[in-house]
Amino acid sequence: MNQWHQMTWEEVSLLVSSGIDSAILPVGATEQHGPHLGCGMDSEIAHQLAEKVAEQTQVALLPTLPYGCSIGHSKRWPGTIALQPKTLIDVVKDIGDWVHDSGFKRLFILNSHVSNFAPLRCALEILRAEHDGFMVALINSASVSERVKARHFEDAEDWHANEAETSLMMAVAPQLVREDKLQDSDDPDRTEDSVFSHPVNRTSLNGVTGSPSLATLERGTELFDWMVEDLSKVVKKGMAETAPLDYGYFDKTNL
Amino acid sequence: MNQWHQMTWEEVSLLVSSGIDSAILPVGATEQHGPHLGCGMDSEIAHQLAEKVAEQTQVALLPTLPYGCSIGHSKRWPGTIALQPKTLIDVVKDIGDWVHDSGFKRLFILNSHVSNFAPLRCALEILRAEHDGFMVALINSASVSERVKARHFEDAEDWHANEAETSLMMAVAPQLVREDKLQDSDDPDRTEDSVFSHPVNRTSLNGVTGSPSLATLERGTELFDWMVEDLSKVVKKGMAETAPLDYGYFDKTNL
Amino acid sequence: MNQWHQMTWEEVSLLVSSGIDSAILPVGATEQHGPHLGCGMDSEIAHQLAEKVAEQTQVALLPTLPYGCSIGHSKRWPGTIALQPKTLIDVVKDIGDWVHDSGFKRLFILNSHVSNFAPLRCALEILRAEHDGFMVALINSASVSERVKARHFEDAEDWHANEAETSLMMAVAPQLVREDKLQDSDDPDRTEDSVFSHPVNRTSLNGVTGSPSLATLERGTELFDWMVEDLSKVVKKGMAETAPLDYGYFDKTNL
Amino acid sequence: MNQWHQMTWEEVSLLVSSGIDSAILPVGATEQHGPHLGCGMDSEIAHQLAEKVAEQTQVALLPTLPYGCSIGHSKRWPGTIALQPKTLIDVVKDIGDWVHDSGFKRLFILNSHVSNFAPLRCALEILRAEHDGFMVALINSASVSERVKARHFEDAEDWHANEAETSLMMAVAPQLVREDKLQDSDDPDRTEDSVFSHPVNRTSLNGVTGSPSLATLERGTELFDWMVEDLSKVVKKGMAETAPLDYGYFDKTNL
Amino acid sequence: MNQWHQMTWEEVSLLVSSGIDSAILPVGATEQHGPHLGCGMDSEIAHQLAEKVAEQTQVALLPTLPYGCSIGHSKRWPGTIALQPKTLIDVVKDIGDWVHDSGFKRLFILNSHVSNFAPLRCALEILRAEHDGFMVALINSASVSERVKARHFEDAEDWHANEAETSLMMAVAPQLVREDKLQDSDDPDRTEDSVFSHPVNRTSLNGVTGSPSLATLERGTELFDWMVEDLSKVVKKGMAETAPLDYGYFDKTNL
Amino acid sequence: MNQWHQMTWEEVSLLVSSGIDSAILPVGATEQHGPHLGCGMDSEIAHQLAEKVAEQTQVALLPTLPYGCSIGHSKRWPGTIALQPKTLIDVVKDIGDWVHDSGFKRLFILNSHVSNFAPLRCALEILRAEHDGFMVALINSASVSERVKARHFEDAEDWHANEAETSLMMAVAPQLVREDKLQDSDDPDRTEDSVFSHPVNRTSLNGVTGSPSLATLERGTELFDWMVEDLSKVVKKGMAETAPLDYGYFDKTNL
Repeated sequence: MNQWHQMTWEEVSLLVSSGIDSAILPVGATEQHGPHLGCGMDSEIAHQLAEKVAEQTQVALLPTLPYGCSIGHSKRWPGTIALQPKTLIDVVKDIGDWVHDSGFKRLFILNSHVSNFAPLRCALEILRAEHDGFMVALINSASVSERVKARHFEDAEDWHANEAETSLMMAVAPQLVREDKLQDSDDPDRTEDSVFSHPVNRTSLNGVTGSPSLATLERGTELFDWMVEDLSKVVKKGMAETAPLDYGYFDKTNL
Repeated sequence: MNQWHQMTWEEVSLLVSSGIDSAILPVGATEQHGPHLGCGMDSEIAHQLAEKVAEQTQVALLPTLPYGCSIGHSKRWPGTIALQPKTLIDVVKDIGDWVHDSGFKRLFILNSHVSNFAPLRCALEILRAEHDGFMVALINSASVSERVKARHFEDAEDWHANEAETSLMMAVAPQLVREDKLQDSDDPDRTEDSVFSHPVNRTSLNGVTGSPSLATLERGTELFDWMVEDLSKVVKKGMAETAPLDYGYFDKTNL
Repeated sequence: MNQWHQMTWEEVSLLVSSGIDSAILPVGATEQHGPHLGCGMDSEIAHQLAEKVAEQTQVALLPTLPYGCSIGHSKRWPGTIALQPKTLIDVVKDIGDWVHDSGFKRLFILNSHVSNFAPLRCALEILRAEHDGFMVALINSASVSERVKARHFEDAEDWHANEAETSLMMAVAPQLVREDKLQDSDDPDRTEDSVFSHPVNRTSLNGVTGSPSLATLERGTELFDWMVEDLSKVVKKGMAETAPLDYGYFDKTNL
Repeated sequence: MNQWHQMTWEEVSLLVSSGIDSAILPVGATEQHGPHLGCGMDSEIAHQLAEKVAEQTQVALLPTLPYGCSIGHSKRWPGTIALQPKTLIDVVKDIGDWVHDSGFKRLFILNSHVSNFAPLRCALEILRAEHDGFMVALINSASVSERVKARHFEDAEDWHANEAETSLMMAVAPQLVREDKLQDSDDPDRTEDSVFSHPVNRTSLNGVTGSPSLATLERGTELFDWMVEDLSKVVKKGMAETAPLDYGYFDKTNL
Repeated sequence: MNQWHQMTWEEVSLLVSSGIDSAILPVGATEQHGPHLGCGMDSEIAHQLAEKVAEQTQVALLPTLPYGCSIGHSKRWPGTIALQPKTLIDVVKDIGDWVHDSGFKRLFILNSHVSNFAPLRCALEILRAEHDGFMVALINSASVSERVKARHFEDAEDWHANEAETSLMMAVAPQLVREDKLQDSDDPDRTEDSVFSHPVNRTSLNGVTGSPSLATLERGTELFDWMVEDLSKVVKKGMAETAPLDYGYFDKTNL
Repeated sequence: MNQWHQMTWEEVSLLVSSGIDSAILPVGATEQHGPHLGCGMDSEIAHQLAEKVAEQTQVALLPTLPYGCSIGHSKRWPGTIALQPKTLIDVVKDIGDWVHDSGFKRLFILNSHVSNFAPLRCALEILRAEHDGFMVALINSASVSERVKARHFEDAEDWHANEAETSLMMAVAPQLVREDKLQDSDDPDRTEDSVFSHPVNRTSLNGVTGSPSLATLERGTELFDWMVEDLSKVVKKGMAETAPLDYGYFDKTNL
């Protein structure tokens, strides 16, 4: 596997010249995940998923960013450590600049915390507008495929620390799971009819949305396998992708 | 209709004390829309849709923001005037602060340009984290309901200046439509299989994605009527909505 | 008229190649204007004046920015929606960048809210320092000529929502005028001897400075005609202007 | 004289409790001033003028900020050291915050470089909106009175390093004057008919606008005396000024 | 060990109420470390050191920030992924805000990349000025004690990827060490007499400063043990520390 | 002496072409210095030291920045006027940009306030990463040599307004010294064992750390002479320094 963390600069250089010009950046979060899951759940899944995918695809694996934009989780529960949206934009913009300048042409941002999506998308917009031809993909871990998405949304539309996430942790990071809390941690989705985007303090009693009590190791193992398999496909596809058209960002059209 | 633009400060005050504590902010864009549509298409639809909805719901109608985050459209075609993502975040954050301080409790952000979504979501995150209890909704005009969404995505997944938008302009702003260009403006969606988010210079030959040649006044009128009807329902629902739970953003939970 | 909003990108391109490389950006504000005028007064005058001038000069008419820097109006009266000074700088900087990159060489910023002047001037400074040869003019609508200026300052030095503004609205946007409030809305200028720049909460009882009771439709029509005529002259002059000297911003002088 | 630089914190505290709650902040610039004047001309006049005025009024004299917003002077002539507009805003905002928190109620910003005005005004706007009741005045040294203004504009409308400035330096800082260059340094005002705000590289051949050859020590002495006398009057007036009305920035009006 | 990553919000809450109100934040970097070390060296040592210290002291262990301010390493060698100084300030400011709001009173920032020090110190300054009584310590891993410092500076004053770092990686992360490169990776310190802070492209041929060829597993093990032992002492001391005086940041002194 | 303040742009230009491509920027602070010293102590020493050094070395002497990052001094004592860390970074970044663009290749930043160091170092990092080959040195006045450092740290590790500073002021700026306060101003260093960086409100009773009662004119004169002599040596050395290697910041290495 091509872990950026472990590679020397010569190895980074050789990787690019060998034809692997793709890197994957896992972006997680540190935030409360109910009474039964560790605060690092999002980072854990981003990290482990990216690692497996990097193994299967040979993309360079960047270090996981363990802090995300979790300000929507409010100050109600200790444990949440959040970046402001503009801070996260700047972080990923800076990272992208240097990935590009290290010779890479493709950056896969793997995001495991839904509310990171907007700032990450902003970073993507900025990166592709400054580095002509730099290809950036933004992929939510829970949406890498239809089957993965379906599993995540099974017990709640606005899911958080739910069955899917709990099962995943049982499978890949049991040290983050409090088995004795599972039966009492379910909290229903109160947002299904909501027009407004209420912060979590106004939607959940304990930080959970969904039914962690339904979680099983088997379901977690299966789901994680799907995620690895389906994201690997996406990444492999991306590694061979060229832009549909070859006009530069700054080239004026002719009338 | 309660146009903020036309209301005096006394009328704004009276509106709030009469029980209307909701405002709608239309956010458009100024960007190329192919050879057949004016650059103000997005602002036009945001403005007209919000106006009709304000008529039907009595929410206060804020002035339309006519500039959005269109940097993804590249410098290839003249006419695009884009705000940087962080600029748009700041603008809507500032607007939200003052709407809140004018006594309003609910802000509907009506967005008609897809790429505005991420910065607007960032602004929403910031607003709800600073003003405890301020309810903010972010709604894309093309996704106000299933039928509206279906119509927009009919001729292209990555639609832009397509049949739906062209039909809408025929119905509500024919001065933006160049009828003589319609037959030659179709450009296929080249992004359906894309892993990466390519900027428009690499996906479209003329700035269009979709089939404006299929546009008709009738379809536009029907679609616009749906949008007004369906968004009005959403807004009315929001005007009566309370948050599922009543815990403040800064209130610590008890163990 | 060359409304940017209505023009396609081809038309924008053709306009420039036809020799019109000038655009006008109306900047208004959304802020309390006393008990007798709508909060959109500033945007209305900026928009209508620019529109008429664009008609007479053929400059490209950019969409009106309806939010300005009104923080000096305080939180005393609802209805004011203000951008922070640095936000307004960024907005106009971004707009200017893209106007320039669309091929334009001249940008007229038409400002109708006095307190926008400082941030707009900052934006002008930045734009001309980054785009060598890009010509930017910043013009206050109330100061387009001596006669226009005289009329605005007739009833108050620190005028706001005064006779001139009220008369103008009677002439061009009567829907913003509350005729029944006119007699009771006069508030004297308390700032004439002031050394300090006090915010409006400390200078006006009702948000007005001046004598709206003196407003008449006739005076408004006359004043608006002057503004159109006089600003058109300025703009036409600008369209033919070249810089006095031809040395670039980055060219070092020779000793 | 109450030089902040020389006062201990106890003396600052005693000054405020003795009833002097006013401070003056001189803001200069470091920028080319033609072949005959030192680059520090603006800082020199701000400093010396403020010092004399502080002597006569007992206001606390803050250290002179010797860098301003001179980006309009371009890179054409070495010697200009400019702050970006937003940097200057931040600097003066920070200074104002701490002046306020040291117990002062009145801040006179004395500006000697015209292009500082816009960022300084932005800082003023921000300060008065954050610190309710903090009174801030922004005064250009060349406009402290009609007679002072008249003298500055005598030889050029867009004057720079002209007769007035040269005479002033002869009187108060002869080490900045190159007598042997005076006869060859005149450069006419080429901007009188300009619609656009051209940067100095496009308006002056040598960085001067005006007629330094007309400068004399006598005129400088007289002018400086006027400036001291007239600004002292303004400052004394300000030291006794109260805001016209006593409503707070955050207090809502009653309907 | 109290890994924030693994703790639920209840456990975080209980930790604080049990009397552990201290957290440690490891800050690393991703940057070239010569031909013989992986780019993640700094993050690795920060992470492992903090982990051991957390074990021994029970402080809460925050997730390691794996990106730092490495812009001084230039674009010469691929592999460096750097945050801008202001970005790093913002990241650590945001993290500190939420650590504080989770109930913690003490934050140990453990920094393993020298050039992170300045932005981290800026963040410390901001945090202690906003959160009265929040105690923040900034500790460089290579300077936790005299003996640790001595070892790091043994082969070079401006050491980087040197004997000490290489030995450490042999001991705790051999997967980052390329044994076959060690003999050829030494590069002398060329900066000992330097007045200026030259970027690494101007001081090192291969990204190294020092003598990695001297590295041994034994030395690494010994050094790491020292670091754990000595930092644990510091942290334990800090956990019992109170500020020398009890006056608040915002409390004015009495004369 | 080459005072930037006094030089015309021609003289600046001639200085550079004569081979002096070095400038020195004194950065001070305005902050409480106990009951016995004026708030401008730091600016005074930076200014006077730089002036003497400029005399002896012919480097261009930039105007002293009299405001620094003193937020650690808290709001406890009036008189402190502080810039936020990011503001100071921006100021020095802007200054450095223009010094570079005036033709200078070497910038000595002379800092006299310890807490300025971190933001100044950030500015240095940014400057050298943007202007390839621009050499920047950051020097604390109290650390220009071992003997100077020893004297400053003689009576306190965390010294402030101590014997050394007081003696210096006696020697070079007696108007800042209150002789009658010296005997009662000593305050011990309470931070020697501190793990955390406490703000001054929690470490000093009167803003002093050290023993100003020990100050004498003789010691001040001697110390100042040392500082001038030792810093002049450093600067002269820097004026002749070339970077150890000649590879550009943006040049990629070859494998």
